[in-house]
Parts: sequence; structure tokens; C-alpha cells
Amino acid sequence: MNVLETFRPKIPDQYREPNLLFLGNIDPELQLDVLNQVARPNLVACDTMNFWIGGKRDALWRVLEKIDILVINDGEARELGGDSNLVKVAQGILARGPKQLIIKRGEYGVLMFNGQGVFGAPAFPLEMVKDPTGAGDTFAGGFMGYLAETCDFSDEGMRRAIIYGSVMGSFTVEAFSLDRLRHLDYKEVESRFREFKRLTHFEDLS
Amino acid sequence: MNVLETFRPKIPDQYREPNLLFLGNIDPELQLDVLNQVARPNLVACDTMNFWIGGKRDALWRVLEKIDILVINDGEARELGGDSNLVKVAQGILARGPKQLIIKRGEYGVLMFNGQGVFGAPAFPLEMVKDPTGAGDTFAGGFMGYLAETCDFSDEGMRRAIIYGSVMGSFTVEAFSLDRLRHLDYKEVESRFREFKRLTHFEDLS
Repeated sequence: MNVLETFRPKIPDQYREPNLLFLGNIDPELQLDVLNQVARPNLVACDTMNFWIGGKRDALWRVLEKIDILVINDGEARELGGDSNLVKVAQGILARGPKQLIIKRGEYGVLMFNGQGVFGAPAFPLEMVKDPTGAGDTFAGGFMGYLAETCDFSDEGMRRAIIYGSVMGSFTVEAFSLDRLRHLDYKEVESRFREFKRLTHFEDLS
Repeated sequence: MNVLETFRPKIPDQYREPNLLFLGNIDPELQLDVLNQVARPNLVACDTMNFWIGGKRDALWRVLEKIDILVINDGEARELGGDSNLVKVAQGILARGPKQLIIKRGEYGVLMFNGQGVFGAPAFPLEMVKDPTGAGDTFAGGFMGYLAETCDFSDEGMRRAIIYGSVMGSFTVEAFSLDRLRHLDYKEVESRFREFKRLTHFEDLS
């Protein structure tokens, strides 16, 4: 039975012309259906998981042809790309549609592949990691939120968006559920962004 | 039986006043004995492994009291520190002697903890990884070689040394054994250092 016969999200009229769209991790046929209900946004990002990579691969590739950014973890990337080497995986996936491939690696940080090359950001080393649940989704929220605010979709803009996403993810894991985010203020976000800069900085060759 | 009765390296006279010393991964009692045979170098780094962490822990801690930099992988760091959280592990180890703790994480890169904070560098994403054997040792060689050349033991100097070590390790894995290093020239090293800068760069907040 087609999934659209049992569950078919209907996008309210006031959401049919989004500037940015993030397709959450649902059946790729539903992701396509959601995409078809809206005017083409300036940027479409997409999440998925092993369940769809294994079970609905063709529909998933049809989604990927229509989106700008795929956000997945390293195990999913290897499964989708059919190779253990992430550089080769990225080449294969970028050739099929997405302009950016963002690979989440949990405590090891994030890699982003695009036509300009590759960006790597370590995760922020935390003394207290209480609950990693939702870190990846918070990453996606911070990432998309920054892009929605700036509309800077350049390589440089994407790099900063990844750091903002990483900052938000680093707060989420410090407490159970959304507890840490409930009392987070923007000064703390800026402060941790600067700590990320300090974490990764080294002087270039002169 | 004491290991010193069966195998005791004798440092030749011309090596007894080194500027820098790297204590390779041998029995910590032998590392101590080597250290006692030389005038205190300006910088002493040390490698070890799970076999000594489990079997000669007391001798190992005596080594660590006398060195400046401990270079180990993440599994070894957790075993030595007795905690899964690397920030806590680093606090515990730095309190016992070493001024820097460098944690190698293979394809995920390197973390360095010291009194100034933490530095994180991703590994260079390579399209061809042929043989990872010796990547950690090549890292140590590039790291120490850079410090021997510059004698800059500041936090900033250590960060650059880590990138040089990472650069060298990234070449080693591209071919079997030492084959890639045999025909490596310094222009390639500089070029990859710059690629590392490009890999990790993002604009700070204004």
C-alpha cells in the first residue's frame, strides 16, 4: 500500500511559500509530497536514516535530486554511498543532486563536502555530557536557523552555519531533553561560537 | 625479574644532551632509565599503550611525572584516566605531570589539552587510504620534527606542530609502509598544511 494513502501531511496555506525548507526524517515519498506542496524554496535541506536508505532507496534518490543539502550521520552516508571512504561517498552523492553533503559524526564533529571542497569541525569537548538525544536535530535547527537569518548560502556562510549548529548541539547534550535549551540565552551562544574558534584556530604558513 | 636485567638500552655519549626527547612506546621502566641517562632535555614527549597502562601503571605514572607531553590514542587515554569523558581524563592526567595531553583519534583527528584549554584538529579527509599502519608514529615524528626546528613550545607552536604531524600522518596512509614518505617533498607538505587551514577555517564573529 502506498504510504500516501495512510498518512499524507497537508501543508497549511500560510506555509506554502517558505524561504527555507528542512525535510525531517520521514518516508522519502512523504518528503517528495511535502516538497510538491510548496513553491520551490531558496534552500531545501533534508535528513534521512538507515531505514529509508535500505527500504526506499529509489524514492530517496528522487528526493536527493531535488534538494540542496543532505544532512546525515557517517554510518548512513557510507550505507547510502556504498563505500567506506567518505570522500568517495561524497563524490557519489553530490553527483546525484545535493550541492552540500553534511556528515554528522557525533562526538567527533561534522564534515561538509561541496563543490568548493571540504570543511571539518570537531565537536566541542564537554566536561559534562548528560544526554546526547537530539544533538543531531538541534544541530540541524541551529544550522537552518542561522541560514534563515543570514540567507548567506555561500561556502563561507555554510561553514558558519555548521558552527552555529554545532554550538546548539553542544548545549543540548549538557542536560536531559530540551532542559538546557530552555534557559539558554544568545550571549551564551555567541560565547561558545568564539570558543569553537579558539578550539580550532592555528596560524597559517606565512 | 626486572626488565632492566634482560634489556637495557644504553644511550651513546653523543646523544646524552638532546634538545628534545621522544620516549617511544616501550616498558615505562625502560623509558625512565633512558630519561635518567640524558641531561634533562628542553622538551620530553612520551608514547605508551594499553599493555603498559594495564600492566605497569605505577611505573607509567612515574614517567608521566617527568615528561612534558603525553601522546596517546583515545582508548588509551580513557583507560589511563579511568573515565569515558576525555575532558575529565585530561584534567586528571595533566594534574599528574604532563603539560600537554595529545589524544590521537585516527580518522577523526587529534585533540590537545593543556593549561590554556583545548585544540581540536580533524584528520584530513583522503580519497585514498591504503594502509593506516604507522600513521600515529608518523604524526609523532612530524610533531616533534616541527618543534625541534622551531623550539616554539607555546600553545600556538604546539597547535602548528599538531597540524604538521597530521599532515605527515595523512601522507603515510596513502601508501603501504613508508612508500609515500620516500618520495615526499617539502612543497607537498606545505601545500597540505594550507589545505588543513582551508579544511578548518571559518570566520569568527565580528
